[in-house]
Amino acid sequence: MSDTPTEYAFGMIGLGTMGRNLLLNMADHGFAVAGYDKSQKQIDLLGQEGKDKPVKGFSDPAEFVKSIKTPRAIMMLVPAGAIVDSVIAEMTPLLSPGDILIDGGNSYYTDTTRRDKELSDKGLHFFGMGVSGGEEGARFGPSMMPGGDAEAYKVMEPVFDAIAAKVNGEPCVAYMGPGAAGHFVKMVHNGIEYGLMELIAETYGVLKTGLGLDDAAIGEVFTKWNDGRLKSFLLDITKDIFAFKNPDSDHLLLNDIKDEARAKGTGKWTSQVAMDIQAPIPTVDTAVSMRDLSKYKQLREQLGQQYQPAAGQLAGDKDELLGQLEQAFYFSMVITYAQGMHMLSRASEEFKYDLKLATIARIWRGGCIIRSEFLNDIYNAYKGDNKLAHLLLDGAVQKLVQESAGGARAVAVAAIAAGLPVPAYTSAIGYFDAFRTGRLPSNLIQAQRDYFGAHTYELIGKEGTFHTQWTGLRSTPEAPAGEQANQKPPVPKE
Amino acid sequence: MSDTPTEYAFGMIGLGTMGRNLLLNMADHGFAVAGYDKSQKQIDLLGQEGKDKPVKGFSDPAEFVKSIKTPRAIMMLVPAGAIVDSVIAEMTPLLSPGDILIDGGNSYYTDTTRRDKELSDKGLHFFGMGVSGGEEGARFGPSMMPGGDAEAYKVMEPVFDAIAAKVNGEPCVAYMGPGAAGHFVKMVHNGIEYGLMELIAETYGVLKTGLGLDDAAIGEVFTKWNDGRLKSFLLDITKDIFAFKNPDSDHLLLNDIKDEARAKGTGKWTSQVAMDIQAPIPTVDTAVSMRDLSKYKQLREQLGQQYQPAAGQLAGDKDELLGQLEQAFYFSMVITYAQGMHMLSRASEEFKYDLKLATIARIWRGGCIIRSEFLNDIYNAYKGDNKLAHLLLDGAVQKLVQESAGGARAVAVAAIAAGLPVPAYTSAIGYFDAFRTGRLPSNLIQAQRDYFGAHTYELIGKEGTFHTQWTGLRSTPEAPAGEQANQKPPVPKE
Repeated sequence: MSDTPTEYAFGMIGLGTMGRNLLLNMADHGFAVAGYDKSQKQIDLLGQEGKDKPVKGFSDPAEFVKSIKTPRAIMMLVPAGAIVDSVIAEMTPLLSPGDILIDGGNSYYTDTTRRDKELSDKGLHFFGMGVSGGEEGARFGPSMMPGGDAEAYKVMEPVFDAIAAKVNGEPCVAYMGPGAAGHFVKMVHNGIEYGLMELIAETYGVLKTGLGLDDAAIGEVFTKWNDGRLKSFLLDITKDIFAFKNPDSDHLLLNDIKDEARAKGTGKWTSQVAMDIQAPIPTVDTAVSMRDLSKYKQLREQLGQQYQPAAGQLAGDKDELLGQLEQAFYFSMVITYAQGMHMLSRASEEFKYDLKLATIARIWRGGCIIRSEFLNDIYNAYKGDNKLAHLLLDGAVQKLVQESAGGARAVAVAAIAAGLPVPAYTSAIGYFDAFRTGRLPSNLIQAQRDYFGAHTYELIGKEGTFHTQWTGLRSTPEAPAGEQANQKPPVPKE
Repeated sequence: MSDTPTEYAFGMIGLGTMGRNLLLNMADHGFAVAGYDKSQKQIDLLGQEGKDKPVKGFSDPAEFVKSIKTPRAIMMLVPAGAIVDSVIAEMTPLLSPGDILIDGGNSYYTDTTRRDKELSDKGLHFFGMGVSGGEEGARFGPSMMPGGDAEAYKVMEPVFDAIAAKVNGEPCVAYMGPGAAGHFVKMVHNGIEYGLMELIAETYGVLKTGLGLDDAAIGEVFTKWNDGRLKSFLLDITKDIFAFKNPDSDHLLLNDIKDEARAKGTGKWTSQVAMDIQAPIPTVDTAVSMRDLSKYKQLREQLGQQYQPAAGQLAGDKDELLGQLEQAFYFSMVITYAQGMHMLSRASEEFKYDLKLATIARIWRGGCIIRSEFLNDIYNAYKGDNKLAHLLLDGAVQKLVQESAGGARAVAVAAIAAGLPVPAYTSAIGYFDAFRTGRLPSNLIQAQRDYFGAHTYELIGKEGTFHTQWTGLRSTPEAPAGEQANQKPPVPKE
């Protein structure tokens, strides 16, 4: 628009696809908004796309900042890493105490913790905010996960409430918690996304190789699933992909795409951080390692020739297997979300984020990549009990899990017998079976560690740690241990 | 001894169990050695244990350093982390150019890289060295993995060759590579150790719950296995543990130990670093996450009551299942080592360590925690071809894998059907089945990423990356995608 207001409600740094679409979304909701980019081309694009909207692009950072009403809310949408720090360095001298700088990219959570500290020391508010939904979400309603100073959130709340995806009239955005809580929640969101995508890929493998379905029939399965309780964004786009012909050929574009899955690293971070805070998320771990494995194409082809690939066809009735596969996917999907939610509750303790799991489930129901029907069940579980220690403890979820576990076992059994890879499926079963085992065989690991490394062990019903000289020192470690002559009682240690 | 030599061949900083035992080991081999510790108690202990040996303890660092012949070889055996840096700061002013400082602890490899750089800038040689074998190994022959300046290695080689475990007369120590290569190799050693320990624990669970064996019968199985091709240090100590009665009761001490496996973090590091360098090691990852899971005792008990633990008994003939279980363990053990060796070959490329995998297998055959009969097969595979891209490509290993895969599948199928957790077993099968699949379903992951995030994809037989507008932008993301009217050919990107 030609008549630009003197005071804009919101500023955006970085006018790439995501930044421009978020601004257009804000403008559609009646907010006058300003954008800044070093590239005139991006400014021009914003001008074209927003020509009848209250949107203005700036190439001068000082003018841009001055045009925004105080306290200012300015979001950066630039690549994660050093660029975020350089933009912060450029902006801070131009900002006033009380202004809010928002990092809307996928920054690593410890970077966000550091920046939050650095900027709050300067009287500025810093928000790390996860934004999910891709280009379409940015334009018409993303899910947003902001974390930082709770007081400052009020400044940007009206804008975010307006532009967020809506589910039952409720916006898919909420204050997550202090510090890096927003980016942390988004990271776990992406970890769950990795898990679900690997499950869908393994399902594709079972349908194609295990059941011998052609592309059209596979597309029908995903379409049917997406009309039922499995309805989700990821299945929705999967059915689209199975309808997309390569205009250069007579078959699906999908078949022309390399089977080497790339990654930008947020799933990897989720697994690495989960290990740091001792939150088991094996299905996400499996998704990460299977993406990595897929990159060894030449090696896979060599091993495929040498060992011969799986014969393929699953034993059993095809229709029965299809029904079991739906159960298997449902079961594994529930377990994947449960792993992510459990990791969030661990992180909330560890980092004092005070996360509201019901709120997180609520804002994930729309706009984001992992939105699904089942998120309503997660929302209901935590709405009923925000302190629920594990999603699998919820009665309604329990019923869903127990009804679908049989199918999950049947599919895993058939696939393993046929030599078809289903590592994410079996990781979900392993997680479930281990977590419902009150007495695991892990006491043996404690004993072994104490035996070879004197790492001590804990006893049932006794405080403290103990060490045992399990055998005498053997001068020839390879030799048999011989008599257990010098057995002594457990000795308290430390 | 009273008549102390003026020049010692080797120095040790930190006279804990490991440090003292290594010094006594050196003294037994005729080397006059000096030890240094801040604690007089540790010095006294060394004096007692080494009273007829050429060993002397010092409480003054300058005297200690002066007593060692130049160029000096001095090892630190102190807890990893900041203490290593403070010891280095204390020692460097006392050392002369050409001296060698060795870190024999479990330091994180990037710390070793940094220290190597810092000390070489000062004209000193730094060696990060993994030492495996625990107290017994330290005293009578450990496996040692030193990395750093190859030239400097000659100074310490005679000492290390003498004290190392021997297999067929060859010492279990060798120069690993530059920089942090030694600590890196030791880290992966520990990752493999985690994987093998989890497999043994799951085997224990199958024997106890799945086959209903009592402790004595379980001990017999491990004893029998350890007499055959599965012979290994970890099974050796496991059979000992199944023979060790708690003197306070009439049953195994093992049964009084908590089923919560603790960890010091080297397995976790292995998984985290593997993800950084895109080396899939899912069985190690599973071992890490299952140790973490075991710590949620209360939650497991709650879930156990709510979902009821597995019925238990595996379907099938017990003797047949026992035979299949031996195969299953063999198969999964091979896969676990294969994952570790593959990670080492990736790391060698990534960090330019120029690792000799045959040498690594050779020095792991004795003294260390993961020593086993099978390491001879690994050694032979890489001795025949040090550039072997994957252990599973070796013909002899292939035969072993193919003979045991059937048992692995049978056990996994039976356990999954019975609800018994075997996540490490199934991760090994999943890894194998995925790696011998020339065409994985991972093309779908590429398509999905491009659909929702415009992350682009790669095409078979075409250079470059491509982006497709899979559908038009939908203003209601939850709604069906509708007609695919605007399908366009793949557009080259970047």
